[in-house]
Amino acid sequence: MKNIYFTAGPAALHPKFEEFIHQAIDEQIGSISHRSAQFRKIYQHCVENLRTLMNIPASSAILFTGSASEVWERILLNLVEHESFHLVNGSFSDKFYKYALSSQKFAHKYEKPLGEGFSYAEIEVPDYAELICVTQNETSTGVQMREADIHKLKRSNQKKLMAVDMVSSAPIPELDFDLIDTAFFSVQKAFGLPAGLGVWIANEKCLEKSKKLSKIDNINIGAHHNLPVLWKNYENFETPATPNVLGIYLLGKVAEEMNKIGIDAIRKESEEKAKKIYKYLETSSLCSAAVKNPEHRSKTVAVADTSKPSKGIMEALKAKNMIIGSGYGPNKDSQIRISNFPSNSMEQVETLLEALKELE
Amino acid sequence: MKNIYFTAGPAALHPKFEEFIHQAIDEQIGSISHRSAQFRKIYQHCVENLRTLMNIPASSAILFTGSASEVWERILLNLVEHESFHLVNGSFSDKFYKYALSSQKFAHKYEKPLGEGFSYAEIEVPDYAELICVTQNETSTGVQMREADIHKLKRSNQKKLMAVDMVSSAPIPELDFDLIDTAFFSVQKAFGLPAGLGVWIANEKCLEKSKKLSKIDNINIGAHHNLPVLWKNYENFETPATPNVLGIYLLGKVAEEMNKIGIDAIRKESEEKAKKIYKYLETSSLCSAAVKNPEHRSKTVAVADTSKPSKGIMEALKAKNMIIGSGYGPNKDSQIRISNFPSNSMEQVETLLEALKELE
Repeated sequence: MKNIYFTAGPAALHPKFEEFIHQAIDEQIGSISHRSAQFRKIYQHCVENLRTLMNIPASSAILFTGSASEVWERILLNLVEHESFHLVNGSFSDKFYKYALSSQKFAHKYEKPLGEGFSYAEIEVPDYAELICVTQNETSTGVQMREADIHKLKRSNQKKLMAVDMVSSAPIPELDFDLIDTAFFSVQKAFGLPAGLGVWIANEKCLEKSKKLSKIDNINIGAHHNLPVLWKNYENFETPATPNVLGIYLLGKVAEEMNKIGIDAIRKESEEKAKKIYKYLETSSLCSAAVKNPEHRSKTVAVADTSKPSKGIMEALKAKNMIIGSGYGPNKDSQIRISNFPSNSMEQVETLLEALKELE
Repeated sequence: MKNIYFTAGPAALHPKFEEFIHQAIDEQIGSISHRSAQFRKIYQHCVENLRTLMNIPASSAILFTGSASEVWERILLNLVEHESFHLVNGSFSDKFYKYALSSQKFAHKYEKPLGEGFSYAEIEVPDYAELICVTQNETSTGVQMREADIHKLKRSNQKKLMAVDMVSSAPIPELDFDLIDTAFFSVQKAFGLPAGLGVWIANEKCLEKSKKLSKIDNINIGAHHNLPVLWKNYENFETPATPNVLGIYLLGKVAEEMNKIGIDAIRKESEEKAKKIYKYLETSSLCSAAVKNPEHRSKTVAVADTSKPSKGIMEALKAKNMIIGSGYGPNKDSQIRISNFPSNSMEQVETLLEALKELE
């Protein structure tokens, strides 16, 4: 019997994954040249469907890397000459911050304890920060930053660039890509695909900045996957190096499928499943929402404090072929993490909650 | 009817690819955590089979990146403080050299015209070069550097590190990994897998050097996939970021399958197919070996000058469901490229040569 994955990524695969992989085998996608018209069509198809799905303007480029973690580095090298500013409230936002330090940037951070989120009004952006780095969904703690707060933060810092990590939430948040300069995600979360592909959205202001930086002595924007080279290739729907062609093909198929359903319907279903999960956590004696402020609770990764060690809960669910995640880092044993991605149906979520109830 | 690919990569898939992908689907490899025991076993299985196949000592790490092109950058950032030295005789060896310039290293090169190769005796390595960069198989021109020449070059430069690009030849060349410090390849060539995974082999001298560089002010060894972080994770058969789990699983399966046949038998068959191809090129009125010195002719990517425009030849073969590559760069219209990877059988090579004969 197959497992149902409710993990934060790698996660449950899209219900049509097997159908799409068989199409890929039939079309010999694993063998086609990344310099062929066939590949350019695959890239274009993927871009067009992501544009529709996430309402990304035609002026922004959609680029492919090996992972979203790679994009952290590419953004810091290409968009920051001296100083970046990071909102940090968990392992992944902290990694983004630490990548800035490793990239020898002067990195500022505004840090909050695990489980707490950021509201627009409390954030003071340092004067000299060139880039504001926001983690829309902090996968380690299940904390989200609401779209409205992200938008206000950018509007009040028009001259700075803003980067949004939406690794474990895209395409669910309704972000305004006319406002946000750059964002990125990976495919093994809400898109329900095997890992191995990062997606980087960037606007023309980002390109301009990276070109400016490339002319400054002692600034290294990177040899591999720097923004000007990625962008130039993107204009022909190509990539500088051989990319994960199969991954791009599958992402295009999943995005197309999502567009058939419609992003509004997908977001509405996510919202309803999230409500069901958090409602259960409010009344359960086994687990309670780890994020106290309901406005900061993630719609895609719910984290719960548990009254029993998480290991036992995970094992009991595994015996019923349901896989959830442990807490992250210091909360490994005292929390569980349940993803709420589009690949898991309402029925599957209900089955999981029933199984949790039986463990109370 | 399916095409038979004789392209230089992406290329023909391994004959058991479909079987392995179905196993992966059954085992839900696309959903498993990269922090699970199940993933660590997959990494370990892949490493052990590559070690056996390519005779890689236990003291060398086997690491995964998004692509082999990424490894160019990682090697230059982690192994060069000031100066690198490159043997350049085609587009890919030139890209390695240009990545060094983009990484703000002082890069020396010894360059030869397209179609010519390097012999040990003629190479003078600059005194201050810290790293010698050799392209064992130059995919763009079909020129190889023989293993014996590579080994002599390293032996006479013991204090320098040596990096070998074996992107389009691994595991065919019999390289001495007790001697060579670092090498890398991608999986969409001779391993017959879809693109999206780079493999980086590095010894302890490389690790030592990268750790030394990490302590020097103004030297940036990279935030993402730097060698010390990759190595530390590798020790537990993990990766710092979510890798292409499916790609690693499939590579382990293909390497295991190759070990069942035995590397000697695979190399012998490659040699025999190469002989057949080059023998045909010696007598054909349609095409002749582009590499004049037989010792420098690649065993895995044969390049031929054509007496008619390459486009017509490629189209005529495509009508018979055989896909070959055009020449690269300036030789696009006047050359063809035929891969000779283990996934193509002797029978397929014979069919291709027959079809070429009919076009004479």
